[in-house]
Amino acid sequence: MPQYTAPLRDMRFVMFELLNAQDELKALPPYAELDVETIDAVLEEGARFASQVIQPLNQVGDREGCTYHGDGVVTAPTGFKEAYAQFMENGWPSLACDPDFGGQGLPTIVNNRLYEMWNSANQAWLMYPGLSHSAYECLHAFGTDEQKQVYLTRIVSGQWTGTMCLTEPHCGTDLGILKTKAEPHPDGGFALSGTKIFISAGEHDLAENILHLVLARLPDAPAGTKGISLFLVPKFIPDANGNVGERNTIQAGSIEHKMGINGNATCVINMDAARGWLIGEPNKGLAAMFVMMNSARLGVGMQSLGLAEAAHQNAVAYAKDRLQGRVPTGAAQPEKAADPIIVHPDVRRMLLTSRAYTEGGRAFTTWTALLIDREHSHPDPAVREDADELMALLTPVVKAFITDNSFETTNLCLQVYGGHGYINEWGMDQFVRDARINMIYEGTNGIQALDLLGRKVLMDGGKKFGRFARLIEGFLKDNAARADLAEFTGPLGKLLADTAALTAELGAKAKADPNEVGAASVPYLRIVGHLTYAWLWARMAAIAIDKADEDFYAAKLATARFYYAWLLPETAHQFRAARAGASSLMSLDAALF
Amino acid sequence: MPQYTAPLRDMRFVMFELLNAQDELKALPPYAELDVETIDAVLEEGARFASQVIQPLNQVGDREGCTYHGDGVVTAPTGFKEAYAQFMENGWPSLACDPDFGGQGLPTIVNNRLYEMWNSANQAWLMYPGLSHSAYECLHAFGTDEQKQVYLTRIVSGQWTGTMCLTEPHCGTDLGILKTKAEPHPDGGFALSGTKIFISAGEHDLAENILHLVLARLPDAPAGTKGISLFLVPKFIPDANGNVGERNTIQAGSIEHKMGINGNATCVINMDAARGWLIGEPNKGLAAMFVMMNSARLGVGMQSLGLAEAAHQNAVAYAKDRLQGRVPTGAAQPEKAADPIIVHPDVRRMLLTSRAYTEGGRAFTTWTALLIDREHSHPDPAVREDADELMALLTPVVKAFITDNSFETTNLCLQVYGGHGYINEWGMDQFVRDARINMIYEGTNGIQALDLLGRKVLMDGGKKFGRFARLIEGFLKDNAARADLAEFTGPLGKLLADTAALTAELGAKAKADPNEVGAASVPYLRIVGHLTYAWLWARMAAIAIDKADEDFYAAKLATARFYYAWLLPETAHQFRAARAGASSLMSLDAALF
Repeated sequence: MPQYTAPLRDMRFVMFELLNAQDELKALPPYAELDVETIDAVLEEGARFASQVIQPLNQVGDREGCTYHGDGVVTAPTGFKEAYAQFMENGWPSLACDPDFGGQGLPTIVNNRLYEMWNSANQAWLMYPGLSHSAYECLHAFGTDEQKQVYLTRIVSGQWTGTMCLTEPHCGTDLGILKTKAEPHPDGGFALSGTKIFISAGEHDLAENILHLVLARLPDAPAGTKGISLFLVPKFIPDANGNVGERNTIQAGSIEHKMGINGNATCVINMDAARGWLIGEPNKGLAAMFVMMNSARLGVGMQSLGLAEAAHQNAVAYAKDRLQGRVPTGAAQPEKAADPIIVHPDVRRMLLTSRAYTEGGRAFTTWTALLIDREHSHPDPAVREDADELMALLTPVVKAFITDNSFETTNLCLQVYGGHGYINEWGMDQFVRDARINMIYEGTNGIQALDLLGRKVLMDGGKKFGRFARLIEGFLKDNAARADLAEFTGPLGKLLADTAALTAELGAKAKADPNEVGAASVPYLRIVGHLTYAWLWARMAAIAIDKADEDFYAAKLATARFYYAWLLPETAHQFRAARAGASSLMSLDAALF
Repeated sequence: MPQYTAPLRDMRFVMFELLNAQDELKALPPYAELDVETIDAVLEEGARFASQVIQPLNQVGDREGCTYHGDGVVTAPTGFKEAYAQFMENGWPSLACDPDFGGQGLPTIVNNRLYEMWNSANQAWLMYPGLSHSAYECLHAFGTDEQKQVYLTRIVSGQWTGTMCLTEPHCGTDLGILKTKAEPHPDGGFALSGTKIFISAGEHDLAENILHLVLARLPDAPAGTKGISLFLVPKFIPDANGNVGERNTIQAGSIEHKMGINGNATCVINMDAARGWLIGEPNKGLAAMFVMMNSARLGVGMQSLGLAEAAHQNAVAYAKDRLQGRVPTGAAQPEKAADPIIVHPDVRRMLLTSRAYTEGGRAFTTWTALLIDREHSHPDPAVREDADELMALLTPVVKAFITDNSFETTNLCLQVYGGHGYINEWGMDQFVRDARINMIYEGTNGIQALDLLGRKVLMDGGKKFGRFARLIEGFLKDNAARADLAEFTGPLGKLLADTAALTAELGAKAKADPNEVGAASVPYLRIVGHLTYAWLWARMAAIAIDKADEDFYAAKLATARFYYAWLLPETAHQFRAARAGASSLMSLDAALF
């Protein structure tokens, strides 16, 4: 059975040495008094919850799955409900929520590290409270005062959970064609009818009520995405005191049997004139839902980061423990029948790949969490705007780059186990199967790439990309005199220049043929992802190189060098693919496929 | 539920247009009379068996798995036994076997295409007869006349099936440390005791007897791989007439629960003084087993090729059927709410990737099958030696390059389905889960890469690689004047020269530090794989470019161009990785991982 220990040392390195979060947070009024000791204490407590409460349920959830009992009743796997009760009791749901609604007001950067740990421990379980937190963000931004009082406070306490109801049998990516209808209800609000599918945490026994955030069309709505409104449709309609009242006519019709995340109930949700209330303005539901969606996309990146870390830890332990073969340079442990497999160069290649991507992903997501805190709380509007623009640019990169990398690395970690990796008992295949969904939901990785290149980079003529490029230029300038960093700053500077040139080139090509964007987008996202990691690894190397006589920093420096030698060169492939052009994809008639 | 139609048109193209197999076979005495019509008829019959008999059982096998009933009794999923009976009745087991033992004497090239089809239809089912065929090769090469009479004839008829028993709980890759003991039995032969794990098709209800080929140590055996002998250990000991007799003390202790290939029983096999008979010479068991192993490695490549083709067909059908979104260049089907997703460049990227790798893999494995036929049957010893040397070089490439590519492409095909790809019902996740084992068993892909670079390329100073290089040079020379092929021959010539230079460079580095081989081996195998596909795609393009007004050839040419533009540039990454050097992997102390 896999084990998990939260990587607190590396989390502290990223927060306090790499990002200087302790000082950054002091500049944000809500966190001016927050000290490092408090952050440490919260993370340690969260780490215990991860390892002791939810990690032991991870394989249970995978094996047992959820159960549909008929008539809309679904139960989560053994132990999930009790773990959720403990989660609520510990006050975790309210941690990063607004104190006006019962929250504890901790910054995103702290919540983010907790989510990494909990995803390492049990992604399927964490999706129940995780989706609630996305619903929190949406209601917090768009709910009426009354909605906030009744619903938001109960989401904050964890008493009620949330869902996102977008997909229908005939539409996923293309929400413009969704059919669910909302008609005015004589007693107020609306009556919603239709079927939603793939609703994660759509029904379960963990909480007393579930708030479904549902996209639907009003009777007079225009066609397409401009005719979509967002509704709050509770499982139980709150009574006059806001307590659980009448059962609403929204219910789970069945649950899906899936490749992974079996512990989370993926439901078909049927609405038969279910009572619902508008959130935000009519026909502007997609914009409101995107607040939730952006939060969820970052959450998906964290899911994959968590899985990659957990798989990595177990693969390292196995590679140190499993005795098999010797390297030609001589026996490492001649007294034993064979050496631990970590002596083999190719086993190290697999472990260093997962390490470089995982630690890179941790640096990336911790930095973006800090950007979110700045975006929400910095007193200077220019700083807020800057953070907002960077987050808009990087959200698809967090989602797609991390989930693609983690699928690769969970597979490499499985491979380290040889045949044992394929056997359920060892738990490695669950990491792979769970990680697979993250490349699909909340917008497939192909859609993320289109969003990055088409919308985020080209629609403002490269301005957002320019902001990001200036950060990297600043680092290069600051370190121009450091010959000891040239092995990093040299390739980083070249990659930045090459990426800027490619961006300009694709912008010009897109004007002639809009299909050029769709053709180049996936390789382009890989390039921007590597640009980000190359920058972060160079910054981490700059710290580590001065302290390389200490073990932690020696390992950090070796991993940075590995990243530059083995993984960054993927860009040599992706630049060629990004320049292959739309005709290489579009020339073949669809009938000839 | 997935569908499958055997790609007979492409198989004919590869056999008869690309490889000119009809004339090649005429030069081989056993096949001098074999005509194209007979081959076609056999393939068509095999295609029917694939689509109508075993494909409908593929999802059944995945869902149901095998059942362990206690006391060594295992049953395969519903329908597997009946399908096997039909397989025997149709005479398929004997198709490519020696007529001296009841075989029909058809060439490997034909059997190979049948195996592709049957793997597309149901890998887990095909492993039952597939392992028998590997056992056939081993017994045919090393069995005594009596063993051949009793066992081989019944393997040929399909009446009995075979297994390979190598792995033990503490040893997989490193067979040198295996512990199973064989002691002389007073009644003749040996008594074997020990435990084997991961034995595919190790116990089942398809055949009346199972012949286990078991690696074990004789009492006086030297340590390591030079003290391993090969034994035949039947489930039921044949009586004087060769019929099923007394139950032997070899039995399944349990079956594994796995990520995939659930329809095949992966067994723990316990031997308690089980009666066994030596195959070949004492202490030379590994060499004998490697006849079987090489056959199995090629078989694993075919498994993945089959899965990739099946996943591809279904993804194409889904992409033509699923309506979702429009491209910015305008509606393809304006009368509908949305266009089929095949209009999107990135969906085409995924489909063309799977097509280019799958058709490339078909060309590769059909050619290597023809090499095997030459190796076995060509009258000229020099031609046989040449084929043998090429097969030694390319066997690890067939195994690792195809299985890696197919894991990537089955995942891309799943991705085409979006969220539906993650739901068991659609069957796409089964292709991915089944494909995952192929990168592990019969020698992990890391071991294949070591075998290629360390053993096959460097141990003879590059002679085998030189034979292969000369084939490619020959093609380049023959087509030097064809300007219309320069888009292919240019990059192919450069890749060949670069690969030769890298090979020389790695040979020199390996002399200074043997870890350089382990460090560079995986990227090196990717490069040799691409060199092979680039050569085959250039040859296919050379045929197609002259007939590009016909649909089949237009698609072939477009796929060749896609391969050169999108996939071949991966070598730009792999050359850098291959040159990164052992120190980038070995410098970090194992304790710091």
